Amino acid sequence: MKTYNKLLLLFIFLLFCEGLQAQSKPSWIWYPGDFEVWLGNKMQSRRTERGTFLPPFWKFDSHYVLIDFHKDFDLQEAEEAELYVEGQYNVKIDGKAIFGYPNRLSIPAGKHKVSLKVFSQDKVPAIFVKGKKVVSDSTWLVTYEDKEWIDQSGKASDQSGTTWLKAAQWNFDNAATPPSAYALPTVPQSPVKTEKLGKSLLVDFGRETFGFIRLHGLKGRGEVAIYYGESPEEALSIDHGETLDRLDVQFDQKKDTLTTLTKAFRYVNVQLAPGMTVDSVSMLYEYAPVKDRGSFHCSDEEINKIYDVAKYTFHLNTREFFIDGIKRDRWIWSGDAYQSFLMNYYLLYDSPTVTRTLLALRGKDPVTSHTNTIMDYTFYWFMGIQDYYLYTGDRSFVEQFYPRMKTLMDYCLSRTNKNGMLEGLAGDWVFIDWAEGLSKQGELSFEQLLFARSLETMATSAALINHQEDAVTYGEMAKKLKSAIMAKYWNKEKQALVHSSIDGKQTDNVTRYSNMFGIFFGYFNADQQQGVKKNVLLNDKVQKITTPYMRFYELEALCALGEQSYVLKEMKAYWGGMLKEGATSFWEEYDPSKKGAEHLSMYGRPFGKSLCHAWGASPLYLLGKYYLGIKPLSPAYETWEVVPELGGLKWMEGKVPTPAGEIELYCSTKEIRVKSPVGKGTLRFKSKSLPKVKGGGGLLNKGNGNYEITIIKGKDCVVKYN
Amino acid sequence: MKTYNKLLLLFIFLLFCEGLQAQSKPSWIWYPGDFEVWLGNKMQSRRTERGTFLPPFWKFDSHYVLIDFHKDFDLQEAEEAELYVEGQYNVKIDGKAIFGYPNRLSIPAGKHKVSLKVFSQDKVPAIFVKGKKVVSDSTWLVTYEDKEWIDQSGKASDQSGTTWLKAAQWNFDNAATPPSAYALPTVPQSPVKTEKLGKSLLVDFGRETFGFIRLHGLKGRGEVAIYYGESPEEALSIDHGETLDRLDVQFDQKKDTLTTLTKAFRYVNVQLAPGMTVDSVSMLYEYAPVKDRGSFHCSDEEINKIYDVAKYTFHLNTREFFIDGIKRDRWIWSGDAYQSFLMNYYLLYDSPTVTRTLLALRGKDPVTSHTNTIMDYTFYWFMGIQDYYLYTGDRSFVEQFYPRMKTLMDYCLSRTNKNGMLEGLAGDWVFIDWAEGLSKQGELSFEQLLFARSLETMATSAALINHQEDAVTYGEMAKKLKSAIMAKYWNKEKQALVHSSIDGKQTDNVTRYSNMFGIFFGYFNADQQQGVKKNVLLNDKVQKITTPYMRFYELEALCALGEQSYVLKEMKAYWGGMLKEGATSFWEEYDPSKKGAEHLSMYGRPFGKSLCHAWGASPLYLLGKYYLGIKPLSPAYETWEVVPELGGLKWMEGKVPTPAGEIELYCSTKEIRVKSPVGKGTLRFKSKSLPKVKGGGGLLNKGNGNYEITIIKGKDCVVKYN
Repeated sequence: MKTYNKLLLLFIFLLFCEGLQAQSKPSWIWYPGDFEVWLGNKMQSRRTERGTFLPPFWKFDSHYVLIDFHKDFDLQEAEEAELYVEGQYNVKIDGKAIFGYPNRLSIPAGKHKVSLKVFSQDKVPAIFVKGKKVVSDSTWLVTYEDKEWIDQSGKASDQSGTTWLKAAQWNFDNAATPPSAYALPTVPQSPVKTEKLGKSLLVDFGRETFGFIRLHGLKGRGEVAIYYGESPEEALSIDHGETLDRLDVQFDQKKDTLTTLTKAFRYVNVQLAPGMTVDSVSMLYEYAPVKDRGSFHCSDEEINKIYDVAKYTFHLNTREFFIDGIKRDRWIWSGDAYQSFLMNYYLLYDSPTVTRTLLALRGKDPVTSHTNTIMDYTFYWFMGIQDYYLYTGDRSFVEQFYPRMKTLMDYCLSRTNKNGMLEGLAGDWVFIDWAEGLSKQGELSFEQLLFARSLETMATSAALINHQEDAVTYGEMAKKLKSAIMAKYWNKEKQALVHSSIDGKQTDNVTRYSNMFGIFFGYFNADQQQGVKKNVLLNDKVQKITTPYMRFYELEALCALGEQSYVLKEMKAYWGGMLKEGATSFWEEYDPSKKGAEHLSMYGRPFGKSLCHAWGASPLYLLGKYYLGIKPLSPAYETWEVVPELGGLKWMEGKVPTPAGEIELYCSTKEIRVKSPVGKGTLRFKSKSLPKVKGGGGLLNKGNGNYEITIIKGKDCVVKYN
Repeated sequence: MKTYNKLLLLFIFLLFCEGLQAQSKPSWIWYPGDFEVWLGNKMQSRRTERGTFLPPFWKFDSHYVLIDFHKDFDLQEAEEAELYVEGQYNVKIDGKAIFGYPNRLSIPAGKHKVSLKVFSQDKVPAIFVKGKKVVSDSTWLVTYEDKEWIDQSGKASDQSGTTWLKAAQWNFDNAATPPSAYALPTVPQSPVKTEKLGKSLLVDFGRETFGFIRLHGLKGRGEVAIYYGESPEEALSIDHGETLDRLDVQFDQKKDTLTTLTKAFRYVNVQLAPGMTVDSVSMLYEYAPVKDRGSFHCSDEEINKIYDVAKYTFHLNTREFFIDGIKRDRWIWSGDAYQSFLMNYYLLYDSPTVTRTLLALRGKDPVTSHTNTIMDYTFYWFMGIQDYYLYTGDRSFVEQFYPRMKTLMDYCLSRTNKNGMLEGLAGDWVFIDWAEGLSKQGELSFEQLLFARSLETMATSAALINHQEDAVTYGEMAKKLKSAIMAKYWNKEKQALVHSSIDGKQTDNVTRYSNMFGIFFGYFNADQQQGVKKNVLLNDKVQKITTPYMRFYELEALCALGEQSYVLKEMKAYWGGMLKEGATSFWEEYDPSKKGAEHLSMYGRPFGKSLCHAWGASPLYLLGKYYLGIKPLSPAYETWEVVPELGGLKWMEGKVPTPAGEIELYCSTKEIRVKSPVGKGTLRFKSKSLPKVKGGGGLLNKGNGNYEITIIKGKDCVVKYN
């Protein structure tokens, strides 16, 4: 090779390196978990009930208000950096303070420590540094307690006991839009119909939606009342609709008039004071800018419609956080969020919304009550982390927040009774589900099951970050509790777990809850599984579930037992039933025996029910995990399986997102096609005849018509079978 | 009695009751401790060093951002109340929400619950309700976690596990000045001398002072630099003065120009950009509106001057909180505050400043390090509560904040070594005092002594609020630790406590610290006391103390041993020495062997030393407690003693504040006069001849020339003695 060529290559290589360096994009950074807590407070303070502010009843935590940021740089050449800060601050280079509040920094060549200290009470202390190499990102270190002055002898020392964490960042890559300015985007939308009813306008946006109302050409002065409705009945009910606005118009409106607080609605009933007029009414639709990566389509158009409405329902409830429902609470409920996490893995695969939700739910120490004050909701929080790691392989999240997992588990352990079990104590809400006459007395099998699962999460998380002692301790606790559960609640006659134990005695009652969780937790042996299936899940005498919330787990348990055909029928009846009632998004609760406006009431209020509830969207999860049959077997789909189950469908096709792209599947009664960008997959299926395989890593006959094929990353696999 | 008279009496009685009711003044109220934490953050973020923001290095906590307030009323007639709120809020009457954000409430006659929920991230959630009987005050209840939705069965219940505390209030009795608007008052003051030095003005305010600088008739545009100095040398040192301001004047000034951040100074050096002129410079003196209740005056004019300068020093450092010093830190340091508390009991007797300081220091849970990160400072915090209760009898403070005492003690106990003692671990600053070569290695006797005293505080506090189990536990811990201390550190040969134990062995070193605390803690027997006095306190070979901080305790120990004559000489030499150096307030440190500008340097900086430090004001305490000799023996002076000690003075007179007014004393070598508005006092004195007594509760001859007289509330006592 000529020297000339070598130099050219070197030049290209250097350009490439420069290119890599240039990729080092600055971002607003902050103390991990703090933006999430702050934004959670803000978002959860947007609930109103008939015009009254209605924040949560649990404790709000706060961000740390005084934060140290620093990073050590080694610069080949001196550079200038722009500086933006949220809060009152100082800047030091190598410990030497710069005068005042500089907005530019000069960093000399060589090794230098750049550090900032920021105080901000109202918003999260955050910084944005934009130089060439000196840029703010998650390689900076942060602490809320810099013990820089401390040592044993009176002089400065490095062994100060300060805990430094990696700074948190997200997508705040623009100096002009700091974390405190965070807002979801909006887009204008028009109604499908506007009806005049005397002095009022009834506006129909065609389907459930969310955002701000815009009044065009409002004239006159006085009160404009806006009554929101998920149904026309609600919008027209001046006295009983759940949400409303009253605008006190005191000046001529030169521009469009906008409401200031987002609301959920399909219909709005706009009522003007005498002498006032309005040209038209439209809206600004507010949405989270997340993209669908999963999909499902099949031979059954009703199922396709259910999937689409579930998707829309899920999008509406995926906002700054995964929330429960858009009309009423708009809060972050752990039990609801847990289901959204699972749906997310089959639709959006958006990790920031998962971790943001987990962090807002967890808040700060000290723990003074269960998550959302609900015992079961504490456990869903742990389980959410277990799943998050399995689906995404994000070890750093577990590493960074393990201390908060531990203090929450400490809280649980501090409240166990003499049997090591959890009963509802003063201050505990034992929820399980909205169901008539559900007993919360004594030791509930459902709560102990979730507790055991949470201890397992602690054990695997501790092991993951090499905290062996904790891994053993929690592992043993989980094992002991599982044995105690089976000993205490398993009733051989009933072939099921009973609901509870009171004063050391099994109660007679069998409910679906603990039995269905026992199935997909894998806590039963094969005989017990079959007993539970027959005597509980498929037994109409056991109290029925009326919320999509618990239907989620009930149908999941049946799917896990191979009852996809049965579940498909149930899905069509239940979710299809809501569609037949005119649903444009799925509801908080659905009781097929109710009629007309009866469907709208809940909590003793005529329009108390939410007609757009995240937990209504579970077909997203069921169809992806149990029909397409795709799921990770080890973290981040390093190994995974696909077990397609048509459950009566003629064909289906869909995508499931993974860290490396989507796994694609087509499956009919005669053909299966799989395409994967990730890990090592295993396709399992049944065939009456010997299948013909193209691609894939070899066919394995497992006997009894069961076959397995290894799916190799990047290599399409086509199977003809019968 | 005629019916007419009876009716008249009844009428008068009703008027009186109405008068009592009318006294029910509304006040802004908040969650206990929250205003204090919030204000502490704000105040401690006002430190600058050469124009750079310099907040503390310890953790800042925050107020609870979401608070429930409520009170049950029983009204004879319906009433209207005005409502003012800091934050976003709702109001409910009997659980029924009112629309929007009302500023007036209508409460019907009868029994009604008025409740508010307030969210505020930037400032403390607070309310002000002004009706006739419906007024906000500390009879309202508050919580940060209202579990109103919770019970075991799914329906609302009162057994929710919510912890309700009594609301906090202070002197915010005006709707227009909410807690967030809190600011100390100011008053204009003029300099005593203004000197032109070329383009600059050197302005002398005659003595140490604090506030804003005011430029009159400033003309031209450009930079005005203001260099502050506690000494002329500092003000004239452009490069090394500790504080400065640079005003960037871009517009013509129509009014006086004011600095925005208070500073400490006696001198200011004002430098104007070319073309700029100023007519004159004055200041706004900022002060805490607290009144002197104690006093001391005597036959020695130097002591009188010391007392006056100490008083001024103490006033300057008594601000929103008791701070360390006005020039540099302006932070709330527990060790410094502890001394201020004690001085306060002999001068201001201002409880709000004590409790506010204690609460700001304590912050919130979880405890992540020692108070101000300093081990000894944690203990002073406990000791401060012990004293506070003794001097004021404020049981409710202990009751309300006992949980925070306990969690702080839990933190200490979680860090003890196998001997139950505390050594400096990573993250602990072991301070004791600024002193050359002071070892912080191993188990220090000083720290264990303070730890034992803190455990005693826990025991007495627990007993006080009827927490018998804790009282016993902490009491036993304290007893055990005290035995261990004597066994480990008492050296019979040296007749003193040694400084430390390293690897289980006594070190050879004897320092003053633990020995002097042992004296006034009463941990020594009579022989040990005399040993310590001779071998440590009066032994020039033991390292001398150079800070007024530890001089405080050294002189207290000597006073406790009856060495008032010696201490008076020391006081005149040490504090008198500072006065001779021209001090107008007392310093952070004073070493008589230094000369001129040497006195100004500390921490390796030429003007690093504070010339106005709270701990310099200790004569206030020593003269009140050990010369006037007045102190409570049981809480709130229910019993107390007065043991006047002239210590060489010809006469002295003074007042000591109590909850019921001031105890007044005059004492000469021949006469003692005591006047008391409180409790049962005991006057103890010596006389060569039988004293003549007028007033008082009888003379007791205790033998050896010792006499006792009981001092009866409201009854002057005059003793002629010899």
